[in-house]
Amino acid sequence: MKRIGILGGGQLGRMLLQAAANYPVETFAMENDESCPAAHLCHHFTKGNISDFNDVFNFGKGLDAITIEIEGVNVEALEKLEAEGVRVYPKPAALKIIKNKILQKQFYRDNEIPTSEFLITGKKAELHQQVDFLPAAHKLAMGGYDGRGVEILRSTDDLEKGFDEPAVLEKLVSIKKEISVIIAVADNGDTAMYPSVDMVFDNRLNVLEYQISPAELPEKVLWKVEAIALKVVKELKSPGIFAVELFVDLNDNVFVNETAPRVHNSGHHTIESNYSSQFDMLWRLMLGYPLGSTEPILPAAIVNLLGEPGFTGEAVYEGLHEILQIENVFVHIYGKKQTKPGRKMGHITILSREKQELIHQANRIKQTVKVVAGTN
Amino acid sequence: MKRIGILGGGQLGRMLLQAAANYPVETFAMENDESCPAAHLCHHFTKGNISDFNDVFNFGKGLDAITIEIEGVNVEALEKLEAEGVRVYPKPAALKIIKNKILQKQFYRDNEIPTSEFLITGKKAELHQQVDFLPAAHKLAMGGYDGRGVEILRSTDDLEKGFDEPAVLEKLVSIKKEISVIIAVADNGDTAMYPSVDMVFDNRLNVLEYQISPAELPEKVLWKVEAIALKVVKELKSPGIFAVELFVDLNDNVFVNETAPRVHNSGHHTIESNYSSQFDMLWRLMLGYPLGSTEPILPAAIVNLLGEPGFTGEAVYEGLHEILQIENVFVHIYGKKQTKPGRKMGHITILSREKQELIHQANRIKQTVKVVAGTN
Repeated sequence: MKRIGILGGGQLGRMLLQAAANYPVETFAMENDESCPAAHLCHHFTKGNISDFNDVFNFGKGLDAITIEIEGVNVEALEKLEAEGVRVYPKPAALKIIKNKILQKQFYRDNEIPTSEFLITGKKAELHQQVDFLPAAHKLAMGGYDGRGVEILRSTDDLEKGFDEPAVLEKLVSIKKEISVIIAVADNGDTAMYPSVDMVFDNRLNVLEYQISPAELPEKVLWKVEAIALKVVKELKSPGIFAVELFVDLNDNVFVNETAPRVHNSGHHTIESNYSSQFDMLWRLMLGYPLGSTEPILPAAIVNLLGEPGFTGEAVYEGLHEILQIENVFVHIYGKKQTKPGRKMGHITILSREKQELIHQANRIKQTVKVVAGTN
Repeated sequence: MKRIGILGGGQLGRMLLQAAANYPVETFAMENDESCPAAHLCHHFTKGNISDFNDVFNFGKGLDAITIEIEGVNVEALEKLEAEGVRVYPKPAALKIIKNKILQKQFYRDNEIPTSEFLITGKKAELHQQVDFLPAAHKLAMGGYDGRGVEILRSTDDLEKGFDEPAVLEKLVSIKKEISVIIAVADNGDTAMYPSVDMVFDNRLNVLEYQISPAELPEKVLWKVEAIALKVVKELKSPGIFAVELFVDLNDNVFVNETAPRVHNSGHHTIESNYSSQFDMLWRLMLGYPLGSTEPILPAAIVNLLGEPGFTGEAVYEGLHEILQIENVFVHIYGKKQTKPGRKMGHITILSREKQELIHQANRIKQTVKVVAGTN
């Protein structure tokens, strides 16, 4: 039986381990927190720091394969493990490109993959020479995650918010849509692409409103989206699961925003809406089995459940009973003991043939389900 | 967060725990073997004997609810837990009826539920007075499981095989089909019925060949099957998941064979073929949520993977790579370290719109996938 480890024990690890139990595989997970979402669902849990060389190397040595559920892992340890024969998904070489936003942008440019115009900055003071380039997004090269490490600079007044460390300054694109495409890549280079996902943002709050799949795009734009996403994963030259996030601008030009080399929030609906989910797919490819089917069962939407503003403490879920009365609504609670404002606590998937029904139910769920803090 | 326990840690517990990770629930499981299929997938595993009063009572006290994955549990402990306020699925009163084949048959007769004719025997010697009743199946009242505790008595020559303990002698029915119906019953009495399942036996070897759902039955026979199955669960007056197994005879009469008060092998296809699986459904009802949808996504077949005759030892799975190339084939390996002849080691589900395709692929899988013993 193959022995496979996951670096990180959050919700992605949790859903990976749910899927793992279908296969002949002995599972390992490492995270700093023994009560993390994935800790109780693996054969062997190790308390450790995924960004520490020794912790990662000691965890991975002797395993057949290792994967990640977050980019902030020690890549040097993964390189050493790879050199010693452990299969690493994604390959450390690909992960290094993606972890560093400067290298990632240069990778797109070097491979003629459309991406927004950018400049590289080392110190905050350099921004004063780039006023003509604004409005732009300033993104820290290393360590950004989930909205941290990004500042929008619209005018000279904003320059003070910029980063004093290596960063990318990306010209803002007039975005019509944000699209994500999940692609699986097997060891032998075979690929399987899921239908594209429309990430619908609340422009006022700049938070993800809901996701809907398949995305509604003119056929020619969809072709561009799919061709570009496929080129990204081909050029990364690594097996694994990849989420390529793209912008469609007002003129239907398509740009790559960024790529995640792992299972991804924008693929959670695949658990119910596709015959083989992104989680199932990763096990198939790590175990050397043929890729599964990405065919959709029904169109889907998902809503992320975020900790309600103003509540910190033991999580309580309100409204689940009401929304589980809706046909083909599926709840995924991540088992995090503590909620805090904006923390990802779960997601809810809706399946329906009708797009309007998906949007209607997504909005209803957003109004009904709240993660608050209580005593139970 | 509710605390819910499972008595038994086999494959049913494993698949229950895979589904549990979607919900806000703290999970407990008890089994005598720390390396059982479910042990690593719960929050709290207890090594203990599910048929022992103290072990079951100590495991269950303080939980919000408890369920079973096998009938051979200590019912007296469950009764005491119920009296102390723990919700028990199924209710101990229903479990007591079902655990004892004499009580189960009397239950059907008392509630005018069609079942094959039967007599009750206490000692083997009594069988000599019942020769006119043959051919019949002699079934031990208590302790039979998975083919054990059943003898077919065709003539006086066979009487020696009969049981010398309380047992039921059931007149053999000329069976055209064996059907299973899975029904969920909520605390408030709401029910949800899955499409019926055709259990296709190899008559030569008397082993289950494959299962296919929905069953192919004339409409009027299907109505009888569904009405009778529903009457069984209504009269048992217990929430939970129930598998009602029925015979259809050559004249299209329908008889209840037996009922299992738990998730069941004949419902495994519901993981992929129905929007809410039998495992998801049990969590929904134990957590007090509305029942899920039993609507089929696509028709399904399943093949059980049994340990290959002649092999005992560490399990190795042959042929998985080949059959995972088939579209919409799903593997479920139960993670049992040791294989032995006939042991249930996993199952494989096939989805297809075409019944002939389901049968063709079921046969191909039976010929291709083997569970043998090896050193890896």
